[in-house]
Amino acid sequence: MYTSLLPFVLLAACAAHADEGMWMPQQLPQVAKQLKADGLELDPATLTRLTGFPMGAIVSLGGCSASFVSPQGLVITNHHCVYNSVAVNSTPQRDLLADGFLARTMADELPAAPGSRVFVTEDVADVSRRVITPDVARLTGKARLDAMETNQKALVAECERDAGYRCTVASFYGGLAFYRIKQLEIRDVRLVHAPPVGIGKFGGDTDNWMWPRHTGDYGFYRAYVGRDGKAADYARDNVPYRPKVWLKIAPGGVREGDFVMALGYPGRTNRHRLPSEVAFTFDWNYPAYVKAAGETLAVIERETKNDPAMRLKYAGQIASVNNYYKNRKGMLASYQGSDILARKTAEHNALKTWVDANPRRKAEFGAAIEAAERLIARRDAQTRREFFLGYSMPRFLNAARTLYRLANERAKPDALRKSGYQERDLARLASVIGGQDRTYDEKVDKALVLNFLKQYDAQPLDQHDAAFDSALGIEPGMGEADLKALLDRVYAGSRLQDKDVRTAWLTKTPQDFRASNDSFIKAAVAMYDADARREAEEDELAGNIQQAYAGYMKAKIAYMNGRGQAVYPDANSTLRVTFGNVKGRDYGADGTGSWTAFTTVKGVVAKHTGTGEFNAPERQLAAIRARDFGRWADPVLKTVPVDFLATLDITGGNSGSAALNARGELVGLAFDGTLDSIISDWDFDPRATRDIQVDIRYILWNMEKVDHADNLLEEMNVR
Amino acid sequence: MYTSLLPFVLLAACAAHADEGMWMPQQLPQVAKQLKADGLELDPATLTRLTGFPMGAIVSLGGCSASFVSPQGLVITNHHCVYNSVAVNSTPQRDLLADGFLARTMADELPAAPGSRVFVTEDVADVSRRVITPDVARLTGKARLDAMETNQKALVAECERDAGYRCTVASFYGGLAFYRIKQLEIRDVRLVHAPPVGIGKFGGDTDNWMWPRHTGDYGFYRAYVGRDGKAADYARDNVPYRPKVWLKIAPGGVREGDFVMALGYPGRTNRHRLPSEVAFTFDWNYPAYVKAAGETLAVIERETKNDPAMRLKYAGQIASVNNYYKNRKGMLASYQGSDILARKTAEHNALKTWVDANPRRKAEFGAAIEAAERLIARRDAQTRREFFLGYSMPRFLNAARTLYRLANERAKPDALRKSGYQERDLARLASVIGGQDRTYDEKVDKALVLNFLKQYDAQPLDQHDAAFDSALGIEPGMGEADLKALLDRVYAGSRLQDKDVRTAWLTKTPQDFRASNDSFIKAAVAMYDADARREAEEDELAGNIQQAYAGYMKAKIAYMNGRGQAVYPDANSTLRVTFGNVKGRDYGADGTGSWTAFTTVKGVVAKHTGTGEFNAPERQLAAIRARDFGRWADPVLKTVPVDFLATLDITGGNSGSAALNARGELVGLAFDGTLDSIISDWDFDPRATRDIQVDIRYILWNMEKVDHADNLLEEMNVR
Repeated sequence: MYTSLLPFVLLAACAAHADEGMWMPQQLPQVAKQLKADGLELDPATLTRLTGFPMGAIVSLGGCSASFVSPQGLVITNHHCVYNSVAVNSTPQRDLLADGFLARTMADELPAAPGSRVFVTEDVADVSRRVITPDVARLTGKARLDAMETNQKALVAECERDAGYRCTVASFYGGLAFYRIKQLEIRDVRLVHAPPVGIGKFGGDTDNWMWPRHTGDYGFYRAYVGRDGKAADYARDNVPYRPKVWLKIAPGGVREGDFVMALGYPGRTNRHRLPSEVAFTFDWNYPAYVKAAGETLAVIERETKNDPAMRLKYAGQIASVNNYYKNRKGMLASYQGSDILARKTAEHNALKTWVDANPRRKAEFGAAIEAAERLIARRDAQTRREFFLGYSMPRFLNAARTLYRLANERAKPDALRKSGYQERDLARLASVIGGQDRTYDEKVDKALVLNFLKQYDAQPLDQHDAAFDSALGIEPGMGEADLKALLDRVYAGSRLQDKDVRTAWLTKTPQDFRASNDSFIKAAVAMYDADARREAEEDELAGNIQQAYAGYMKAKIAYMNGRGQAVYPDANSTLRVTFGNVKGRDYGADGTGSWTAFTTVKGVVAKHTGTGEFNAPERQLAAIRARDFGRWADPVLKTVPVDFLATLDITGGNSGSAALNARGELVGLAFDGTLDSIISDWDFDPRATRDIQVDIRYILWNMEKVDHADNLLEEMNVR
Repeated sequence: MYTSLLPFVLLAACAAHADEGMWMPQQLPQVAKQLKADGLELDPATLTRLTGFPMGAIVSLGGCSASFVSPQGLVITNHHCVYNSVAVNSTPQRDLLADGFLARTMADELPAAPGSRVFVTEDVADVSRRVITPDVARLTGKARLDAMETNQKALVAECERDAGYRCTVASFYGGLAFYRIKQLEIRDVRLVHAPPVGIGKFGGDTDNWMWPRHTGDYGFYRAYVGRDGKAADYARDNVPYRPKVWLKIAPGGVREGDFVMALGYPGRTNRHRLPSEVAFTFDWNYPAYVKAAGETLAVIERETKNDPAMRLKYAGQIASVNNYYKNRKGMLASYQGSDILARKTAEHNALKTWVDANPRRKAEFGAAIEAAERLIARRDAQTRREFFLGYSMPRFLNAARTLYRLANERAKPDALRKSGYQERDLARLASVIGGQDRTYDEKVDKALVLNFLKQYDAQPLDQHDAAFDSALGIEPGMGEADLKALLDRVYAGSRLQDKDVRTAWLTKTPQDFRASNDSFIKAAVAMYDADARREAEEDELAGNIQQAYAGYMKAKIAYMNGRGQAVYPDANSTLRVTFGNVKGRDYGADGTGSWTAFTTVKGVVAKHTGTGEFNAPERQLAAIRARDFGRWADPVLKTVPVDFLATLDITGGNSGSAALNARGELVGLAFDGTLDSIISDWDFDPRATRDIQVDIRYILWNMEKVDHADNLLEEMNVR
């Protein structure tokens, strides 16, 4: 059950902008007026009940959002969220990515990719006062951070005594508030249906972040539990999980102007950042990232050019880097010439003026705001100093550092270990360490490291990391040839690329490490003390930042509530609701004057090239040519809609979020933003920001007319 | 010099639609009013002078259009028109496609691809009465066609006595009028500059026929002649051709609404077709083509999947088929649900009503119109009957048929030979035959033939070609296995895949062919008499169609002139002028509400993915990021424009056409249409039809800021 929010958050108020806001469900009564104005027909209070309709149907896949759409545990999400599960079940003989996959019976369903999970949020509790106890409130720096971590670990351990649950303590408003989230962790997840990539990934990287869009980004899982109804590992005789709530389908879809809301787990936004953080990010951090990402892609391209197998190993990294590369460049383009920094600065100054205008407020918040500004500037300087160091670390040197840290942590009692190295973390850690060679090639790794090590080494000495230099024998001003020879030597001296060797280190003692002659292990041991010192310094800084930031946010919330504005916390991978309307845009991208709210199957035909990223299946094209639209044609558009724009406030992690109409019925799945509006992660501009949904009618039309998934349509009660 | 047009064409009149029309230069005074209304500042009479400014600067590359932009024979055209010349000069070590090419001095210029030509039109003469002499006018069928061909060959031979010239007799208005075009054929063509494909082909196949578009589709050749100023083969000490006229650059570009005209060599349109031809094309021929093209692409894809070298051999065919495939599908999509056929039928019926309403007109035109309808229906039925036969012909069986035909033609005096087999054609024929293996793989060819042969063989017997069946041993109803075995046998029995063997046949006698045991040669010999009979039948039909069609067109022109409308002939690869305005569109493609007239470099950044088709060079991106726009930014857009839309009437062959402003200055190069308006080849819809130009300011900005082609900017007098 939800517990109440801190009182200053509960002040009823209206939202700052129409459609801005990733609201915690319990905040929705605060914005009831806006919800009604946008068209919600449900009582906003309904949406605060976590296990009621429709909120109880919303689940997390850990990185993606999803929802139950049948009493038999059928889960709908994005194609790109089930992509790996389709890939691991594919063979050259049976290419499920290309052909798509449909289980006609439950017996035909395939195990999802290893590690796949369905998390069902069952309880969210405010634990702010159990994390920041009166004792903690008196501490500063690392002592404060350590005490908070101890409290959080205890809260998690207490919650996870209930077997089959995964618990987390999430920080809200930059460490001002903490909630413990208890989720049923369903571990037997099976692939039920995915359309061919020619539908599910139509447009590929080219159309990523773009409008007009024609991607059928949907797929289906099913959640299984043991016969006792509890979460269980995969077993043939497990049974479908029976959710208390599942979504109803709205086969009529939506029209432009309709109310729509997306329910899901947005990952991270930066709406409450200080002006200095905005400046640092856009003037230095993102440009540096874009340059490094471009170099990374170029090096991988060059090194793998004539070796498709090697290239395949890096396909995941290429896709991921490309996605961020395009994202960051999109943000930079929007930032350039914008008034974001000026506005953020003005808002921040207004806040400070308001604080200073009143002695009580000044006493309460003044020091915290000043400290936040000072400490964050220090952290940014450190990020900048360590930028190239991160990119200059050989993959298996990093693995060695993790393994040696693990050996040291394992010597402690579980409760005292660093988070990430506790018993509850070991299985995941082992799987990550064990799987590293599948995405690794020494030649590529070495070329990447060399590329950045040159830049690291060319920096002034005060930007160097002495322990790293000494562990690897790096000296300032070495030329490329020397650095290359050095890397050749170090790589040749390690056997960590061997999976058996690497996993064996998971259970060794610190003494074993110190006795090893493996070059990466030796370097990890040599760097350990300095790493620990740096971590302690970082913890000291982080503890002080938490303290200062919480004070700053408290001031900001009080300031905004005083102006009648509700404040939603930045995204942090917890369940949120965003609402707005289906809506095109009065200006388009370069070369177009405006955007209409919907795309249609006409655009699929126009974009289809028959190869590569734009290769719709022939059976789909035939159905379009034959205008075999069944009941799925929109009455205004006279054809089947594909994707639609809405004014919703989403970000990464929202992928797969159910888009619901005014009555809480499923009308689509959110899956993307548009390149010139993704700067909304920092600054929500209601005129620009549109997110993209795949229309439920396109999903249902494909299922009925293209893939003949009658069994699933029946299960979803679509007749 | 131009001679006068037939009187009924010369009637002054205004155009049917604004901006519709590919006008012969001498027709422009007829549409002077419209030219002025659209904004032309030059006297329309200026444009009729073929060797004056600006018309004298416009040249053909044979398939592409181009223009002189300096007194030193510098030629500007599209990147895709110089693409092969860049490709043949590239090596794995020096990838000019990827990196671009710039000759900093004339000595650095590279020979263009073999066979590259610059054709400078110097004279266009009306020879209608020398082709259709009073004697010819009395003939019908094959006798008529043969007599016409004899006259045309004589006209060409007479003209080509002037060494270094290439002459053609082109048919206008479906055989109603004939003009002899005399062109200086410059054979020493050199590559001067091409931007990287990341600019010149930015967007690749994905953006082909699309808007918004961001392709920098430009490149430069230079025309060279002998020291005597005459056309000559490539030689080091040839000198730049000195054109009498060259275009001036308009560095200020254009704005929306400005007058613009494109001057070039459009290939083929079908605006004057009968309703039955429209129906046949869209109801049968294009759908059949689309199906066959889809199968062709799939077969090549399948057969070459694991063999990049083999795939490369078919890259040209893939690109070409893909281009037509997308084009035809785009036309079919526009046709579907349109009223084109109904309108064409109504217009045709109105014409017939007008003819029938007057006894003199009925006597003059009635029979011709009726004959045209009847004969064309016959030709269409024949096309349909022979559809699969064409696709079922092994590549080297076709070569064998050509070679045997050549042997037979060579036995005749040159003037009596079939056009295409005369002495003037032999070099080109030898080059085509010799080069065939570079784009051939037996496995792929056999798989393609098998795919279509199955469909050919499944047809009723009256759709079979008896000579083909008997020559290859095909029997109706053979299964795939038998057909495959048959092909294996026939392919194995030929040595024509060997270039030396194949070219040796270029000079053999008919007796040699008849004595050969080569399976394809034997089949060609066996099919020869039937081929000749079919050709005679086709000639009989073609001769009668020419006669009837000329009558129909004469009626149509009289009818339209009577209604005050000038009539431009369908495109036939001769020099034409189209004029209109720079203009966006009040509706967009699927998902966009409208199109703006210009795209800008902002869109390049947004589309850039760093790989594949959207990979702008880093130095270009850096210049955009730095807003290093120099003088090339548009004052309204505040950035550099890339491509722009206009209401011009162009088609294939117009690629590279100079787009000129109201004063005849160069403002861009036409290079494409948009998918939903390419049906303009059949039906010009002024609301829909937009063509795409690359903006001269984008060309100049890239040359100055990205490729530093200062030498060429200076040569073009852009300072």
